[in-house]
Amino acid sequence: MKTVLVYLPLEARHREKLEAAGQGCRFVYTQPGDEIDPLLPQAEIIIGNVPPAKLRAFPQLELLQLNSSGAAEYTAPGVLAAGTRLTNATGAYGRTVSEHALAVTLMLQKNLHLYRDSQRQSLWTDFGKVKSISGSVVAVVGLGDIGLRYARMAKALGAVTIGVKRRGGERPEGVDELRRTDELMDVLRRADVVASFLPGTRDTDHLYTKEHFRAMKNTAIFLNCGRGNAVSSETLAWALEQGEIAAASIDVTEPEPLPADSPLWKLDNLLITPHVSGGYHLQETFETIIDIAARNLRAYLSGGELINQVDFETGYRK
Amino acid sequence: MKTVLVYLPLEARHREKLEAAGQGCRFVYTQPGDEIDPLLPQAEIIIGNVPPAKLRAFPQLELLQLNSSGAAEYTAPGVLAAGTRLTNATGAYGRTVSEHALAVTLMLQKNLHLYRDSQRQSLWTDFGKVKSISGSVVAVVGLGDIGLRYARMAKALGAVTIGVKRRGGERPEGVDELRRTDELMDVLRRADVVASFLPGTRDTDHLYTKEHFRAMKNTAIFLNCGRGNAVSSETLAWALEQGEIAAASIDVTEPEPLPADSPLWKLDNLLITPHVSGGYHLQETFETIIDIAARNLRAYLSGGELINQVDFETGYRK
Repeated sequence: MKTVLVYLPLEARHREKLEAAGQGCRFVYTQPGDEIDPLLPQAEIIIGNVPPAKLRAFPQLELLQLNSSGAAEYTAPGVLAAGTRLTNATGAYGRTVSEHALAVTLMLQKNLHLYRDSQRQSLWTDFGKVKSISGSVVAVVGLGDIGLRYARMAKALGAVTIGVKRRGGERPEGVDELRRTDELMDVLRRADVVASFLPGTRDTDHLYTKEHFRAMKNTAIFLNCGRGNAVSSETLAWALEQGEIAAASIDVTEPEPLPADSPLWKLDNLLITPHVSGGYHLQETFETIIDIAARNLRAYLSGGELINQVDFETGYRK
Repeated sequence: MKTVLVYLPLEARHREKLEAAGQGCRFVYTQPGDEIDPLLPQAEIIIGNVPPAKLRAFPQLELLQLNSSGAAEYTAPGVLAAGTRLTNATGAYGRTVSEHALAVTLMLQKNLHLYRDSQRQSLWTDFGKVKSISGSVVAVVGLGDIGLRYARMAKALGAVTIGVKRRGGERPEGVDELRRTDELMDVLRRADVVASFLPGTRDTDHLYTKEHFRAMKNTAIFLNCGRGNAVSSETLAWALEQGEIAAASIDVTEPEPLPADSPLWKLDNLLITPHVSGGYHLQETFETIIDIAARNLRAYLSGGELINQVDFETGYRK
């Protein structure tokens, strides 16, 4: 009888769903904040993002189903034993993150961050010209579930969309033009909006350099709703202060939380949100995570195929 | 030879367009701020919003083409003589105002106004649950060009749209359900977003009362991108302070500019923009105004049919 350790705050209906998928298993329910150290060496299956530091390559652990999309911390040496399968929650965050990204895109295009600042001073001030999403060239860097949803929404509002992904491949619906990451610089030159949804991997570390921001239009808007490692605070501050781009919005920073003394906080043309585009800010995100976990639990126990398996080499979904 | 008095800041290409439409006319070019009093009693045709106080029912004036959608001030007694035709610029503001309205909708759904405030204090604070436009019931009150464009964009993002207009009629594409203004109260009860685009007429004066806000969901978002007369500052402040609705965004106020001592400025869950959703904030707006003016000039001179004629009784387009 396998032990399934759940490390998520569940309601009764979630438990029912998992138990229906894991018939014959013993379920141990815990949630973030609980003391779980004694339970870990007994769990064959874990559902939820147990802190990586607590995972010491336990040999009995067969499957770790994360509740996050990001999996980089779990692919580091010594966290999981060689035989442990690792699956993430890709797909659960698509709607919430893509809608957040669209919201900040329009907000910056319409100068609404400046109007909010102005309102706080009781000032009736006109900030002049605005931009239109219709006809804007929107580059979507990182074309997973989140990026693709964002591209489709932007296109539905009249944008021209360029998707950028590591490997080429077939152009998905909602993407007008598909480019490879090694063509990124050319794409940046043409984009009115650069929306980045890259995961936190070695390959994406400080991927955006000064050279990249120099290549962008001075009128461009840059968004990072992926991971904070993609651009350093220094580079981003430089690009905004130099006017290499017009405005930016970041939901992720390096480090997180962003230190109170970071100069980024004070930049008028930067919008900062504290890593809230995902999380459980939309109820459906959590429901989808449970659906993914139940599906993988059932598949694993019956020898079926797992979805969302993480490749330890790349940190991406296989 | 008719005299066409233009009261708009034109570039050469705009003049060429108008002159091609008004062949044989004498064009007098002025712009807001210029002294025009001596010119007014000679103009058979005026293009542009000459201040209504300057128009004293001049008998020679045959056609006044406004550059605004709003025409209420020009329908007051003593402004235009009985025979003068009045046309407005409906259609020119559709994209800019509807996009602004969509931007503030998403901004409030994602708490971005609160995150901006928090950023200004260098605070990394999570404001909890957000709303999704997908699946939201969006009531669009005032279903002209602007409202219809807004409805179509909201629907493209997954919203369920209810259009509200004075008279019923055929349900336009992009509107899931069409209701008459006398059914407004029922619609308000069901809406997650109430987006109002009503013109400033006698009928719309303080149309939204406390009773209307009481009918709305406590979680509802209210937008006014029409005219400030639709809701008094007192009623709106009351609705927000009482929690009758969750948040609001107004681009129009009563009066304008909003006085510096208005308590509205200080409301956290209200976003105020200073009547900037329209105007010439998008370049294409101005181009469309010139196109409308040229089309009506040509039509008037050749005895053809005018577009955008204003009905003096209702203040609406005929």
